Amino acid sequence: MTARHCNILFKPDGAGVDVPAGTTILAAAAKAGVFVNSLCGGDGVCGRCRVIVREGKVSGGSTEPFTHSEIQEGYILACEGRVESDLVVELPLETQLAKAPEYAGEEVPELTDVSRAARRKVPFAPLVRKTYLQLPPPDLNNNVSDLQRLELALGKRVATEGFQMGLKVTRRLPEVLRKSDWAVTAVTGFRGPLTEIIDVEAGDTSQRNMCIAADIGTTTVVCHLVDLRHGQTLGQAAKYNSQAAYGADVIRRIVHASENADKGDALRQAVIGDLNELIHELVTRYRLGRRDITLIAASGNTAMLHLLLSLPAESIRKEPYIGAAYRLPPFRAAEMGLQINPRGLLYCLPCVAGFVGADIVGGIYASGLAQSEEIRMLIDIGTNGEIVIGNRDFLVCASASAGPAFEGAECRCGMRATRGAIDHIRLADPQHVLSFSTISSAPPLGLSGTGYVDLVAEMLRIGVIDKTGRIDGSLSGDCVRHGDYGELEYMLIPADRAGGDRDILITQSDVNNILRAKGAVYAAASVLLKSLDMGFNDLAEIMVAGAFGNFLNLENAIFIGLLPDIPIQKLRFVGNTSLAGAKLAALSQTAYEDIFAVADRTTYFELSTDPSFMDQFVSACFFPHTHIELFPTVMAELAGKRSS
Amino acid sequence: MTARHCNILFKPDGAGVDVPAGTTILAAAAKAGVFVNSLCGGDGVCGRCRVIVREGKVSGGSTEPFTHSEIQEGYILACEGRVESDLVVELPLETQLAKAPEYAGEEVPELTDVSRAARRKVPFAPLVRKTYLQLPPPDLNNNVSDLQRLELALGKRVATEGFQMGLKVTRRLPEVLRKSDWAVTAVTGFRGPLTEIIDVEAGDTSQRNMCIAADIGTTTVVCHLVDLRHGQTLGQAAKYNSQAAYGADVIRRIVHASENADKGDALRQAVIGDLNELIHELVTRYRLGRRDITLIAASGNTAMLHLLLSLPAESIRKEPYIGAAYRLPPFRAAEMGLQINPRGLLYCLPCVAGFVGADIVGGIYASGLAQSEEIRMLIDIGTNGEIVIGNRDFLVCASASAGPAFEGAECRCGMRATRGAIDHIRLADPQHVLSFSTISSAPPLGLSGTGYVDLVAEMLRIGVIDKTGRIDGSLSGDCVRHGDYGELEYMLIPADRAGGDRDILITQSDVNNILRAKGAVYAAASVLLKSLDMGFNDLAEIMVAGAFGNFLNLENAIFIGLLPDIPIQKLRFVGNTSLAGAKLAALSQTAYEDIFAVADRTTYFELSTDPSFMDQFVSACFFPHTHIELFPTVMAELAGKRSS
Repeated sequence: MTARHCNILFKPDGAGVDVPAGTTILAAAAKAGVFVNSLCGGDGVCGRCRVIVREGKVSGGSTEPFTHSEIQEGYILACEGRVESDLVVELPLETQLAKAPEYAGEEVPELTDVSRAARRKVPFAPLVRKTYLQLPPPDLNNNVSDLQRLELALGKRVATEGFQMGLKVTRRLPEVLRKSDWAVTAVTGFRGPLTEIIDVEAGDTSQRNMCIAADIGTTTVVCHLVDLRHGQTLGQAAKYNSQAAYGADVIRRIVHASENADKGDALRQAVIGDLNELIHELVTRYRLGRRDITLIAASGNTAMLHLLLSLPAESIRKEPYIGAAYRLPPFRAAEMGLQINPRGLLYCLPCVAGFVGADIVGGIYASGLAQSEEIRMLIDIGTNGEIVIGNRDFLVCASASAGPAFEGAECRCGMRATRGAIDHIRLADPQHVLSFSTISSAPPLGLSGTGYVDLVAEMLRIGVIDKTGRIDGSLSGDCVRHGDYGELEYMLIPADRAGGDRDILITQSDVNNILRAKGAVYAAASVLLKSLDMGFNDLAEIMVAGAFGNFLNLENAIFIGLLPDIPIQKLRFVGNTSLAGAKLAALSQTAYEDIFAVADRTTYFELSTDPSFMDQFVSACFFPHTHIELFPTVMAELAGKRSS
Repeated sequence: MTARHCNILFKPDGAGVDVPAGTTILAAAAKAGVFVNSLCGGDGVCGRCRVIVREGKVSGGSTEPFTHSEIQEGYILACEGRVESDLVVELPLETQLAKAPEYAGEEVPELTDVSRAARRKVPFAPLVRKTYLQLPPPDLNNNVSDLQRLELALGKRVATEGFQMGLKVTRRLPEVLRKSDWAVTAVTGFRGPLTEIIDVEAGDTSQRNMCIAADIGTTTVVCHLVDLRHGQTLGQAAKYNSQAAYGADVIRRIVHASENADKGDALRQAVIGDLNELIHELVTRYRLGRRDITLIAASGNTAMLHLLLSLPAESIRKEPYIGAAYRLPPFRAAEMGLQINPRGLLYCLPCVAGFVGADIVGGIYASGLAQSEEIRMLIDIGTNGEIVIGNRDFLVCASASAGPAFEGAECRCGMRATRGAIDHIRLADPQHVLSFSTISSAPPLGLSGTGYVDLVAEMLRIGVIDKTGRIDGSLSGDCVRHGDYGELEYMLIPADRAGGDRDILITQSDVNNILRAKGAVYAAASVLLKSLDMGFNDLAEIMVAGAFGNFLNLENAIFIGLLPDIPIQKLRFVGNTSLAGAKLAALSQTAYEDIFAVADRTTYFELSTDPSFMDQFVSACFFPHTHIELFPTVMAELAGKRSS
């Protein structure tokens, strides 16, 4: 007997689909092509796939994520609710998944500007080059082979120990040379001591040679289109990593990918699909052909690069956290399914450890840390907080699992930094919001990571929470209240003023999540410094990388103890240094090799084996810190407030 | 309407086949799996595919190749005769194609003996090596990637600028390492400055690492099985190149291959099939698995290597005779369809020109010519006669189109040097054969190239032919006669004492063919020497390479003027130096690189542009030469005979 089929209509899309009874609503939505927010990949733990069943019958579904009134209204988690009859399912605004972020973590231009980079001894010499050649036709006195004729001419223009050429191109060579009357463009790819002639094109095509620099983030995939003739960035495009459907964080995705080969390939296809979409968008926007893109330079964390290449990632998530390979040669992009020039190459930046990826290595290089005379720190805050300390003589790094709070997950009203996310907020007093801003100035739907940093800082300032993060129940009223989630919460924006249909609020658990996240980052930085017998004041500078960093209110980050209390001019945003690293590598063979050298000399410091980490973490789980004397300006401000 | 089908029965095989009316007998035989001798690939010119139609009706077919009585008996060329009814077709012995030569042009052992080669500064270091490694398992303090763990251990054992590994192997690496408890065998392939880790096998497989050294001749494909642990040759196998079905010489095959992609691929498949057969034979004989063969080192002339790799060969046959590529990197053997270890590599020796191939380059190296202090000459006599002169300071080479007479073609009773071929002969007087030998002592079927050299020399000695090669009609009798082919002929062995059913004889045209062939080789050598301002007596040695050379009677070769009249101790057979070159390359990375250096410094001398070549050729078209004073010992012998 085959299962009974039910029809599901999704609102507001209007998309319909037939599925067998028993299917989850999440699976039905995927089949219907409706994007449902999900961070855990259907494990029932992230609470993001909230849907409202307007008509019909469903079974299953936990009640914990919802208030009583929500349950009465028909709220259910799409990953848990199973179809029992024809349904009408509505996606509330916060559940509708935006496909692309509103902004895509720009790199800081001075880092990748070729003319400036040149001053940093990064000579312009792209990994893939096009060289137009007019070859002397053969005769009886000049009778070298077609290949050698090409290599002799090319050798005068491209410095290398030797050329190599694949059989496919060699097979086409005699015809291309003769049909083009010996005037051809050689497309060459850097392979360390050797140079691969990846293609030979008839006539002069050297004016069309483009590259995609890609940062493959766990959350966001960013692609920049770069002209390899001069290194100028023509445009950029970004979208959320579709692998999110299999889990918000790398651990969940690795677990999924490791179950079987098909699932691993599904993850690869998801991100390859994202890249192809972005490439298509850029190629179309700039009226190029896919042939014109000869190179993809990719950066990303270790797990993302493993999933991109279908390398087994299982060992990354288990102690001692070992990846299959951190240093990879260039691959034919087409073999990965990437839709650029069929002969184009994919270069991946190198990783250092299971949780210190190419994004960090690229960042160390692009930020200038690896060439710095003075000792600096680089912090990249995401689901993992990666910290690097060093200069041109040494580089040490560590990774702390901060949890996804700063990525807008794990908190009741957390959301990605996309349209409608509150990214900045100021409170007047426990009962009044003074001002807030949302991304794209859209009606507020939830809070982004930077919104939470501001909110917690402001709650601390006005006394809604104390140093331990406890919400002051004595302030009970419209805002501080014992809410439907069964704990104290602080309501910011009521549903009738929000863009969605629920109050925007922060619960006690949310505050605790933020506390642990910031504590982990701060503790990691402290332990790493201590291992070098240094303190924060010994650093010439702290560079904050990543999309999160770019929009962070630094004073507030210090106020809650996420960043140390050092003079604000010693803190600098360096933007998407992962992307900047990929771009520099693409534009400079020297940079590409230097980035590998950086990976070589970066020492990984394993925090989980350091006995002091847990102590430091516990100490850092206060606002701003158990040892308030470490934060003199915060101490002064709080003292001022208290005395006023 | 579909064509009427006819049944063809082939004798003595007994194989039957149904084909549409109008099919050629040759095509029907191919379909039936019956091997029919053919040199021209069905062009109706070689006259080798003689069959006898015993029953049934055929149409078409030229009469020129046959005597009257043969035509009455039912003789027809299989490539021309078209099926009109059910047929019984008999293959006379000379038409039954032997699949494999009786002997396969042994290399001279001292050339490839590793211990001796070592004395020639050829260190033993095979192109593909296996290294057994017991890796330290990872822990938190030793947390490099799986790949780097392997590379670190391997780097202590294999000298290289850097390793590279394909994605397929990298994907399998984590599982192989963990399942084998970190004890693995790395299979590495030499790629110039870099080393490719072509596979990683669980446990210790280093005891099984074999190579196939292959000489892909136009006529014969020879494979030697070599143990890469110590360089010893375990066994050998040979067969005729199946491409012969598309033409006996390279020109015909190139024409065929250039017609369209399918035909080009058919030629590739033919030789790949031959190699796979020989590999299978060797693997079976020595109880190996295909996995154990990790390397194929291939030598052959330029056209053979082009056809092997499906490189376009069309330009090779047209002035200025340019090949697609002469220096090729290693390729994955499996991608070519070669059935060895799926990760194994195919290395091809380099060529110098369209008609100076890897066989010659390998020969220059293996014969020691390239390292010689004194100036030597290397001659390889086949369809083309290739001549190299040089020492460690210079190398020049030329190629003369000798025609296929020495390969046993183009002469009425010519045949390959296989079972039943007369390879040596002595005549008592114009009416009596003193003695002859056949290959494998089988009943005589025809004459091999060396048989013709002996026969012509003997005919010259006893006065059946004069210096111009003219058969003396005044000796008319049982042997010298005006025969069925419409010209004077010299009958050696009557049909009733032969293995086949026809007289074994040489016609006036046959003698002329031999005359032109030997004239071309001698003229080429002379012109090349003259270009260096040298004569034959300035040479320390003449080395004669190839299967032909190995069985040549040197006195007779001098007597007819194929080889110059120098002291016999200055002539040396060096065997199959093409194969020896491939074997040395396989066993020594230094040899492999030195062979490429030899190709680089070998200067090709184009005879067709040298005005003196035609003069020299005409002068050499006498027995032994127009200028008899160039052959003092022959002059003395002939004078002695005349005076006696």
